[in-house]
This record gives sequence, structure tokens and C-alpha cells, in this order.
Amino acid sequence: MSRTSLSSRSSTSLLETTLSRIGLPDAAAAEAARSRQARLTKPSGSLGRLEDLAVRIAGIAGNSVPELGPGVAFVMAADHGVAAAGVSAYPREVTAAMVRNFLAGGAAVNALAAFAGFRVSVTDCGVASDLGPATGLRIRRVRPGTDDITRGPAMSRDEARRSVEIGIEAFEEEFEFGPFGLAAAGEMGIGNTTPASAIVAALTGRPPREVTGRGTGVDDRGLERKVAAVERALAVNRPDPSDPLDVLSKVGGFEIGAMAGVFLAAAARRIPVLVDGFISAAAAMIACGLCPLAAEYMIAGHRSVEPGQAAALGLLGLTPVLDLGMRLGEGTGAVLAAAVCRAACEVHTRMATFEEAGVPGAPEGKKT
Amino acid sequence: MSRTSLSSRSSTSLLETTLSRIGLPDAAAAEAARSRQARLTKPSGSLGRLEDLAVRIAGIAGNSVPELGPGVAFVMAADHGVAAAGVSAYPREVTAAMVRNFLAGGAAVNALAAFAGFRVSVTDCGVASDLGPATGLRIRRVRPGTDDITRGPAMSRDEARRSVEIGIEAFEEEFEFGPFGLAAAGEMGIGNTTPASAIVAALTGRPPREVTGRGTGVDDRGLERKVAAVERALAVNRPDPSDPLDVLSKVGGFEIGAMAGVFLAAAARRIPVLVDGFISAAAAMIACGLCPLAAEYMIAGHRSVEPGQAAALGLLGLTPVLDLGMRLGEGTGAVLAAAVCRAACEVHTRMATFEEAGVPGAPEGKKT
Repeated sequence: MSRTSLSSRSSTSLLETTLSRIGLPDAAAAEAARSRQARLTKPSGSLGRLEDLAVRIAGIAGNSVPELGPGVAFVMAADHGVAAAGVSAYPREVTAAMVRNFLAGGAAVNALAAFAGFRVSVTDCGVASDLGPATGLRIRRVRPGTDDITRGPAMSRDEARRSVEIGIEAFEEEFEFGPFGLAAAGEMGIGNTTPASAIVAALTGRPPREVTGRGTGVDDRGLERKVAAVERALAVNRPDPSDPLDVLSKVGGFEIGAMAGVFLAAAARRIPVLVDGFISAAAAMIACGLCPLAAEYMIAGHRSVEPGQAAALGLLGLTPVLDLGMRLGEGTGAVLAAAVCRAACEVHTRMATFEEAGVPGAPEGKKT
Repeated sequence: MSRTSLSSRSSTSLLETTLSRIGLPDAAAAEAARSRQARLTKPSGSLGRLEDLAVRIAGIAGNSVPELGPGVAFVMAADHGVAAAGVSAYPREVTAAMVRNFLAGGAAVNALAAFAGFRVSVTDCGVASDLGPATGLRIRRVRPGTDDITRGPAMSRDEARRSVEIGIEAFEEEFEFGPFGLAAAGEMGIGNTTPASAIVAALTGRPPREVTGRGTGVDDRGLERKVAAVERALAVNRPDPSDPLDVLSKVGGFEIGAMAGVFLAAAARRIPVLVDGFISAAAAMIACGLCPLAAEYMIAGHRSVEPGQAAALGLLGLTPVLDLGMRLGEGTGAVLAAAVCRAACEVHTRMATFEEAGVPGAPEGKKT
């Protein structure tokens, strides 16, 4: 990946510059898209969510008949000090091994991204293990893994800001490499459902037990360890829910900050961005804490099996497109839902209107 | 469309020949696919429904790593005598107008089929209005619309059998034209949610009010007219729930019979076939009444807003892949869900195993 002019900017201003560029979606384009939907050869509203997606994307893109072009799935990888506390079914080394798998094209997100017309962009935001040769990897390690959030903050405030800016830079670098019209934010980080639960508990005020699940598949004792870890992390660190960077630094992760950066950059560029599963939703909350308007550019891809996701998405006002019992992360739910978004736009742009097709519409009085 | 050798077969034997060819899916291929899923680089079960779809398709196709190839969306069109009873928000002429729209490529199913790698195959099973020039249309009119089911049977028993065989012939003709690995059964027929509700009420024993909805969007009074029409159709015709051809002839439709034929032909050819919305589910019930094993080859595409679909799918043991608030028919929900089936097979065939990727798996004791 080529570095761009952005990396020469002052690191302290990139976040503020990005936040200042985020405005409202284009209401006129959305309204024109809604009007077009009503003229297409189908009963009004009969395509359900597909109609809403086309209208939302039109507003985001500022084009009543949006052309999406290629997509980019940002997969942010990092390790977590808390993994030592036995909160995952997998050893920490899996983070690095899966990064190599992403680069080799062998992971689920690779197959689904190819299917959905996305390229996969992998960033090392703070993987702990040696990665060996890693062609195609964007290496932006804040450091090799966060500290254990049950004993103190995950990272410093500067590191939290840096992790968000890594996501913004990744987005901008990919955009300069080759423009795209859809984005997705996914992750890899053994142990990262625990910081995600801590973030969601901190920002929603919900008890840790309600927003903590089994992650990659821990047993009952593992789940108890996770709930205890989240409770301890909140008690030890006392994150300030009114200060998203404080929450991220106290109980977050480098890849979670980077995903928040992807969401902010997408909003600034007016590109629809798919939220993936639970970790991605926690990152979306950080992004929206920094700029509430960012939620207008998000589309929730997939309902996670993790109980904390509903709490996060509820607060953001987002409803997932798909509910297929997935709990993998990586961006898999996001890119699969992006395929549905593409389908929605295909219908929206390719269908004939009643007038064009010479089809009689429903009498006004009978439409509901 | 070219006619094939099938049309020279005795019409009275085509249905029985097809039924006799339907066997169980390939359990060994399904088991091999399930075993492969467990070795792919992801926590076991973490792809949820995508894993189940890949395994089901493997069993249907008799190939543990199925290659789907192109798909065919069968859109069966016909008119209904009961439409005169004010059960639809649209005039009867819309059936013919939409058939022309399908042929011109301007309907929702055209856009979604192209997206999902399907060609659209349109059959006139009994449209009432003049279609004018209709290049690409398979013309197999039983006659121009059924009789009004609130006054007597929709059609004769011979016509019911003929309508099912039209679907089988359409499937076989398309297969000879160009083999395909996925099928979908959709429809167009103003007024056809009313016979579909009557079929589902007859075959499930549920009260008409519970299985009758607003179709393309009738108002409260229209809904009352529909419920009354279904009640009258059942009282006047007394369809025998143990005899699917009797139910089809008494309260069905030509396109519904043809869709049942598509389901049976798909099962006989061991090709996965997507059920669309409510009408398609009613046709699936007719097919499974004729051969219960046919359900093994079906995948429910989309949850319909129509209340009768859940009753039908429940009895067939099918759960829809998608729930996007769609209520259009045409095969739109089926082909969109087919895209998810393709994604499931892409993941299944393209992902690396733990061994191939050198990724450490979860310790056995921690897997749940």
C-alpha cells in the first residue's frame, strides 16, 4: 500500500479535520429516490427494506440513482492484553495466523468480499505476534497489543486518538489507490468481544452481564470469566461515557479505534459504510460519540448472536439487514449485507417505471 | 423457446414419471460438506445459516463442494376469475402488462435475477388479456383465466394436472436449453393471493382469516372482501385436503399448479429450488402433497408479509433465509435469497481449512 500525502499531515489535526467534514446526507437526492421508487412497476412499498436501502444510499451518495462501483472491506487487526485472562476459546497467536490467512485469501471474509465486489484491505493496528513476511499488509502497529483492561487502561489517550487516525488514514489511502462506493468495517483480534462489551456497557449504561456473550464460543465458565472481566475493567478504569476517546483508551482496543476511524472517514467522504457484527457496532458507537451525524452514513449489516450488539445498534437507530445466525466478525456480515445493498440499487436503477412500461398503476384510493 | 421431446410424451404420464424420480438427497455428500465446514478457518458454527445452506445444497446436488452455475427463475403467469370480486388493488389487465414488462426486462425480478446470476423464464399459463407480440414467452395457456372460486371450482381436475405438467415441461425445456444449478419459482397473477390463502387454509386447516392478508395492498374493506371470498370458496367447493390435485382444481390457479410442477421437476433433477413468497409457498404445499420428499429440495427464500406463508412454510419445515419486508412476488425474494445461497457456497468451496492455512484451532475442550 502506498502512503499518501495524508501521512505528512499533522497527526493531531487529522481527526478534527475529518470530523469537521461530516455533514448531513443529501435530503433532496433521498427524496428524489423515494419518488422514483413510487413510480417503479411494483406496488408501493412492496420491496420493503430494499426500497429503504436504495433511498438511504441515494441520500448518502448525493445521487438519486446511485452507482456504487467497487467496495472496500477494512479488516483491522490487533491483540488484547485481556486475552491472558482466559476470555477466548482461541490462543492469542490466532490473530496473527488469521491475518496471514486474510492476506492469502483463505478466510471467510475473502470469499464473501469477492462475492460482493469488495477488495479486502488488512491493517495491523497492534498485533502481538510476529507476522513474518506479510505482502499486502498495511502495518500501523500502535504497539503489540493493548494492556489488560482488568488491571488498568488499555492504552493512553494519545494511543486511542492514534488508533482512530489509523482507520482514517487507511480509508484515505485506499480511496487514493482506487475510488470505491461502498465500505465495510470488520476486525480480527482474539479476545476482542470483551473490550467491545466493556465499551457498550460504558456507553449504554447497561449491566455487563446483559451485553456480554460467548464470542467465538466459550463455555459457561468462560462466559462467567468474561462478565467478571468486563465488570472489573469498568470498576478499575471508570471510563467517562461523555468522552468517547476516554472510553476507547480505558477499555477499548487498537482495531476498535481504527474501525471508528473508518466510520468517520466514510461519513466525511459520503460513502455508505456497513457495520459488521458486535465489535464493529461498538466501534460505531465510538465514532458516533465523536460525531453523532456519522450514524447517518452507516448501514447495519448483520444481527450478531452477541447480546451487546442490539444495545449498541438500538442507541444508533440502526436495524440489521440480515439475521443469519453469524458470529464470525472479520467483516463477513457487512460484506454479505453489502450484496443486498447492491441488489437494492440494481432494482432501483434498472427497473422500469409504470409510464415507461405502460403498466396501469393501482387506483389512488386503493393504495395503502 | 423450443419445444422438446417431452411434449411428445403422453401427458397423462409426465406427472407420475416425475414423481417416481424424486428420491432422498445425498446424505453422504451432505455429511462430507458438514465435515468440511468444521475444518474451515472459523469457529465451528460461526457462519450460522450459511453453513446450513452449503450443507443442504451439497446434499441436494450430491456434491460435497457444489458448483452452482447459472440459475433460472421461472415466472408463471395466469389470471383468476375471483379477481372480479374486488380482491386486488390492481385491475386484471396488469397481469398481461407485467408479463410484457418481464419480457422487456423492466420488472423487479429482472433486475434481481441478473444480480443473482439467474435468467428469467416466463410462461403464460392462462393470462386472460391479449398479450400482443411477446417474444421469448413460453405460451402454454390452459385457458384465459380460472373460473371464480367463490362460485365453483377454479378449473377441472384435468386442467389442474395440466397446469402442474406445464411447470414440469417448462423446467425440462429450460434444462435442455442450457443446464442450470439453481431454480426459483415466482409468479404474476392479479388476485392470486386469494386462491393461495384458500389453498393454505384447506391444507393446514387454519381459519381463512388467519391466512389471508393484504396482497398488493388492499385496504381494510378489501381485506374483508378477501376473507369472505376465501370462506365462500371453501364452503362452495369443499376441497379434499388429502388430495392436492383436488385442492388445486377447486381453489387454485394455473400459475400455482405450474409452480408446483417446477418444484417437483427440481426435486426430480436434484436441483435446489428457492420458494419465493406466499403464492410460491402455497404451490410448494401442493407439490409436497403430491410428493412429501420434494420439500427436501426446497429452500425458503423470503419471509412474506402475508400471514399465510408462515403457516405453509411451518408445515413444510422451511425457514426463510431473508426477512426484508418484501411482498412483491414474481420470484424477487427467491432470487435475492439465491444470492445468499451462492455466497454460502462460495465460502464453503473457497475458504482454507485450519490445516491449509496453518491456523491453530480451538482446543477441543473449549469448543461449544
